[in-house]
Formats: sequence, C-alpha cells, structure tokens
Amino acid sequence: MEITQTLIKEKTEQAVKILREAGLDCWITFTRESEICGDPSLVFLAPGHVTWHSAFIISAGGQKRAIVGLYDKKAIEDTGAYDAVDGYVTGIKEPLQKFLQELNPQKIAINYSRTSEICDGLTHGLYLTLHDFLQETGLENRLVPAERVVSALRERKSPVEIEAIKRAITITEEIFDLVRGFIAPGRSEKEIAGFMLDELRKRGLPTAWGQSTCPAVFTGPDTAQAHYSPTDRKAEPGHILNMDFGVKVDGYCSDMQRTFYLLQPGESQAPPEVRKGFETIVMAIEEARKAMKPGVQGVQIDAVARKIITGAGYQEFPHALGHQVGRFAHDGTALLGPAWEKYADKPFHPLEPGMVFTLEPRLTVPGRGVVTIEEMVVVTESGAEFLSHPQKELLLIG
Amino acid sequence: MEITQTLIKEKTEQAVKILREAGLDCWITFTRESEICGDPSLVFLAPGHVTWHSAFIISAGGQKRAIVGLYDKKAIEDTGAYDAVDGYVTGIKEPLQKFLQELNPQKIAINYSRTSEICDGLTHGLYLTLHDFLQETGLENRLVPAERVVSALRERKSPVEIEAIKRAITITEEIFDLVRGFIAPGRSEKEIAGFMLDELRKRGLPTAWGQSTCPAVFTGPDTAQAHYSPTDRKAEPGHILNMDFGVKVDGYCSDMQRTFYLLQPGESQAPPEVRKGFETIVMAIEEARKAMKPGVQGVQIDAVARKIITGAGYQEFPHALGHQVGRFAHDGTALLGPAWEKYADKPFHPLEPGMVFTLEPRLTVPGRGVVTIEEMVVVTESGAEFLSHPQKELLLIG
Repeated sequence: MEITQTLIKEKTEQAVKILREAGLDCWITFTRESEICGDPSLVFLAPGHVTWHSAFIISAGGQKRAIVGLYDKKAIEDTGAYDAVDGYVTGIKEPLQKFLQELNPQKIAINYSRTSEICDGLTHGLYLTLHDFLQETGLENRLVPAERVVSALRERKSPVEIEAIKRAITITEEIFDLVRGFIAPGRSEKEIAGFMLDELRKRGLPTAWGQSTCPAVFTGPDTAQAHYSPTDRKAEPGHILNMDFGVKVDGYCSDMQRTFYLLQPGESQAPPEVRKGFETIVMAIEEARKAMKPGVQGVQIDAVARKIITGAGYQEFPHALGHQVGRFAHDGTALLGPAWEKYADKPFHPLEPGMVFTLEPRLTVPGRGVVTIEEMVVVTESGAEFLSHPQKELLLIG
Repeated sequence: MEITQTLIKEKTEQAVKILREAGLDCWITFTRESEICGDPSLVFLAPGHVTWHSAFIISAGGQKRAIVGLYDKKAIEDTGAYDAVDGYVTGIKEPLQKFLQELNPQKIAINYSRTSEICDGLTHGLYLTLHDFLQETGLENRLVPAERVVSALRERKSPVEIEAIKRAITITEEIFDLVRGFIAPGRSEKEIAGFMLDELRKRGLPTAWGQSTCPAVFTGPDTAQAHYSPTDRKAEPGHILNMDFGVKVDGYCSDMQRTFYLLQPGESQAPPEVRKGFETIVMAIEEARKAMKPGVQGVQIDAVARKIITGAGYQEFPHALGHQVGRFAHDGTALLGPAWEKYADKPFHPLEPGMVFTLEPRLTVPGRGVVTIEEMVVVTESGAEFLSHPQKELLLIG
C-alpha cells in the first residue's frame, strides 16, 4: 500500500512534466468497471479498482482532478495526489463536461494506440461515449492519442520501481537455485513447475503472469517451445531443460529464463553441440547489452543478437530479442525487436534511461532441446546494466 | 482446467445459436496481450492469455476459427473447440483478411458497447486496426456491435456455471458462519477482514474482487459506506456491523453481504430502530425476488425494493438493487437498477432464464450503522430462486 501511494504521487507529477515536453494540454484516463476491462494506466492513478465511469485528468498546468462514482471517492481522495475529487451519484457527463469547459484544453490526450497495447486502455465503447460528451461541448476535435505520455510514464522508471523489480529478480534467482537441486531424470515438467510454485506460495507471492505458463518448463527436443503449460514429459539424461519464470513483488515483475543440461552416464560436461549453442546465446546477450544506450533503436539491438545466432548457423528466433518489464511481464512500448508487422513501430522507439528490458534469444540444438536464457537489464545514461546475475554456465544436473 | 475445456466448447456452440437468433453472420473477438488489457469474452474462447494479435471467429454457419501468434497456437488447439487454428509469425493481417474474404459475412459483430462494459472488450486502437484491415478488403461497413451475442453468452448460464457459483456461495456462507464467532467488541475492521482472508487462504481460493475491499467491513455509523478498505475502527456494542464478501471457485464468483448487531449490556435483542431497518431490508429483498421472472425489466424490480425502503421512511440507496454475477462479481448487462445515466439502458433489458443476480438494498439507521443484505438469485422459467440461504435474522454478537 505504501509503494502505491508513493507511486501515484510520483507518476501524477511525472505526467505533468511529460505533458509539457509533449506539447499536450491535458491527459484523460477514462474507464469504468476496471476489474472487468481495466485501463493499464489506472494503477498509476488510483489505489484500486473503480466501479462506475471514472475520469482522471491531469493538465500541463499542473491540475489534477478525478471524477468518480460516489463510493469510489474516498479511496481516491486518500491518495493525496489530486487537487479535488468529485463523487457523482447518477452520471459522470455533467461534472466531466463542466470541468473540461473550464479547463478548455486545446489538445486532449486519451489512451488509445494502434501500435502499443500498453497505451491502448480505452475501449471503443468508452471512446464513443467520451466523444459524445465532448461533441456536446464542441471539444471533440481536440482528442489525440496519449501514446507519448503513457509510454514515457511507464518506461522512465523511478528508483522506487527499479527497487521493486530488483526484489522480484532476487526471489526468482533464489528459486532457480533451489529447483536445480530438485531437477533429476524422471521428474516431469509438471513436478518441476509444482516445486517452483510451492516455493512461491511459501513466500506469499504471485507469479508475474498466468500460472498455467509460469513457470513454463520444457525438456528435450519435442516440446511446444514456448507459451505452453508444463506436461507429464520427464527430464532425461542427454536433454536440455529450459524454463521461463517470473514473480511479482509490490506490483512489479521479473521475467527470466534459465537453461539446464542433464548429464548422461560418463559425461562430466555437456556435449560440444550443446555447449556451442549455450555459448552462442551467452554471447548474443552480452553483445546486445553492450550495444544498448539511450537514443539507439530496439531494431538495431535485436539485429546484433539475431546476427550472432544466424551467423553461428542456427535458425533465427521467431520473436523479439527483448521486451520491457514493469507492472506486467510485457510492459512499455519500445521493443528490442525486428521490423515485423506484429511489432508495428515499437522497434523504432529510441531507448531512454530507466527502461528495463529482457534479453532472451533462443536457438534449438537438434535432438537435445532449446537453449534460451532471459536476462534483465536497465538502460542507464551511457549504456545498459544487468539487473539479474547473468547465466554464464550451463546448469548441469547429475 | 477441466471446467475450462467444457466451458469453451459449451460457449462456442452457444455462440452459434445466439448468432442465428440475432441475425448476425459472424462474431470476432479481436485482442492482443490479454494480460494487459484483455477482452472479458476471452475466457470463453481460450484457456489462458494470448500474446500477439489474436482473432477468435465464430460464424452463424457453425464455423469456428482462431488466428493467433505461433506460440499460442497449441494451447488453443488443445481446447478442441476450433475447426482450425492458424499460428502466424510476422503478423495477423494476411491470414485474417483471407479468412474473412472467404467467409464473406454481411454482418460482423465485434466487442464494443457504449452501455455495457462486459460487451466492450475491444480497445479503440484495436478497433482502428481491425477497421483498417477490413477497409483494405471492402468489408469495413459490415461491422456492428456484438452486444446481443456477448450479453446472452454470459447471461444464459449453463448448469456447469450455476454449479460453480453455488460452490462459491457455499464457501462464502461457511466463512460468514465462522467470522460470527470472531467478531467481538474491540476487534477492528482490519482484524475481522484478516480472519476471513485467512480462512480463504486455508482453502486456497482467491477473493471475488480486489482484496483491498474483499471483504469490505463497516462498523458503526461513521464509515465510508461502501467500496472502502477495512480500517482500524473497532466494533462497539450498540453498533451495526456489515460486510461485503465474495470468493471465486473455478472462475465463478459469489458476492454477498451480511449484517451483524453487537448487543449492549442488558440487551437480548437489537433495539427497535435496528430491527425495523433489518426487517425492511429483508422484506425489500423478498418482494423483489417474488417480482422477478423472464420478460420483466430490471427497472421494475429495482422499483419494488426502492419503494419499500422509501415507504418505510428511509433515504433511497444510491446504487442499483442488484447486478449479475458470473466470471466477475459484476457481470452481464441486464441490471436491476433505476433509470440513471450511469446505468444507460441496462435496467431495460428483459430478464431471461439462467441469469444470476444479487439483491442488495441498503439503508442507514442513524447512530447505529448501515443495514444491508446481499443475496444471490437465479432467474428460472417462471420466477427466481435463491441460490444463497437468505439472511432472515440479524446476526447478534455478545
């Protein structure tokens, strides 16, 4: 709760600065029944869910106003982040129109975006509703997308946010260490995932994404590759086992992958083709990290890693090299990705200090399994630093 | 997991029937990164979250097609609910355009609604994206809102869904019984809520809505009334204590309220004004339930209860008499509510068999606190039946 209050004050202040920088007059987050289909920006504006139509309005002049249903008023007031909170009974239209007419903003930024899901929290029905309200007051042509505000707000992480992410990483690394002692030939993917979830339960923490694929555990050469629940498939000597796991601490996520190898009788290290795959991944991550700095585009960083993988003779990975992490395991707009349709303009956003990214190349070693490591880094003023302790050695089992 | 598979098959089949009934040719649920801002219809279409742009298309002709990112393909295929699942790598545009051109539907229903949040899962950015795709193939003028499909799908509950809700109600009633032995003068709202959450944790179940207000506990005359976290305020003899609580079992919610009274020294029952308030609420619920049957509008039911409250000399409650319950504590479109702006046309939807509603009038007894009971009922072919065991007596403490 304490981090929530701090964050709401921090982020509403930050929004004022970003509005000025972007030349926008005000930013409206307009939502309702946020438990059903909530705007991802709401966590920075309110301490919990809202029920009826709610508007959170921040102006470049520094005004901060919330207009919410009566029963949600006190919780919003308690944040101390707003100059005033209106609590209505029958409907939001009148108080919202009145406030906007007085403010008379020329550019009203609202949360929609074709290209960035994190900036696209306004539903189409709510867009039409807001448009109707503004049309009655002649302001409807002033609506513009709030992509720059919402992206910057999520991406420029404050020390409070970075510390929460670090705590999530520490727990994740702890559980990777513990599960290493549990993995053995004959243990199934489900058993291994169950062990990790038990460790999380002991700590009273939620997973960073849906439990059916967190952790995701893949062993051997014949798996679904990614985004699939652990199966009854058993770990076998001579196979690679990889896992994808993250936890949420104080609302902030980790998202990491590790690669294990199960030794066969007589082996003291992994066979050459597994080592080559592993070393290629380690190198791709390190070279990508070294290329990162403010102003560089994600597409360039993705290319660094992708080229190392294909240059070593492997197929390229069918996904981006890395995404941002924050309130969600996949967060922010700027992406370390290739110029593919599904990534829209995300790979072309320049990196900024305070952005937290994953680096997660992957490759397949035929007959053995998938090698993939996922580290987490933060962009600094002059480069990028690991937040995680990078995996430099295959985790050998047996 | 088992209920998920059954549900997806049941609901995709049901959607075909509803499309025919509504005279629509196909229904598209179009979403991406559903963990960030998911469409509430997705739970009936996929067993978990999807990452990239995803389209779930059901036609009145009975076709069921999913087009999703490659890594999400296998999990969707495993549902057994789709004729075919396409898994793309670079972008959804081409496979989606191709499928729709072949299908050539005249009316394409998509998930947006001004008035019903549960039907409004399509974000404005995704609406624009889909519109762009359809414009290129000349189909953009065929888009219509899917309100009727989505509402009916959620509201006509199958036996599998009703059973899950009943299990949630049973646990809720169990915990109400247990907390009655815990409430005592001097116990704070926070302590009482903590006791209830511990009971839930023992059972390994989540709350029906955000834990900061589930349970919500209010004691005495000076509280925030509703939607507010438990405070350090202590229960006192002579005060009314009321609570709002729900749990989620197999994805389905309960949502119930109970009223307690703390006896003062020498009292063997509550004072007359508290009893009068309580009996008024009990009567309002019973008369409202008796008035419910298919075809009647929610606004009429709300009026029955509202009139009993105001007729007994109390202020009317500043909210609807009752909402539907399902995957969310607030679910469905049809509402038992007054004709207020914030409720749009929801109070005018006719009741249908299989709808599950709360009945939750409230009133204030000056100097004592708030009396409020929330029961759950299901609409049958000829009336409405309690799913909960209705509170008929004040729960006396001490």
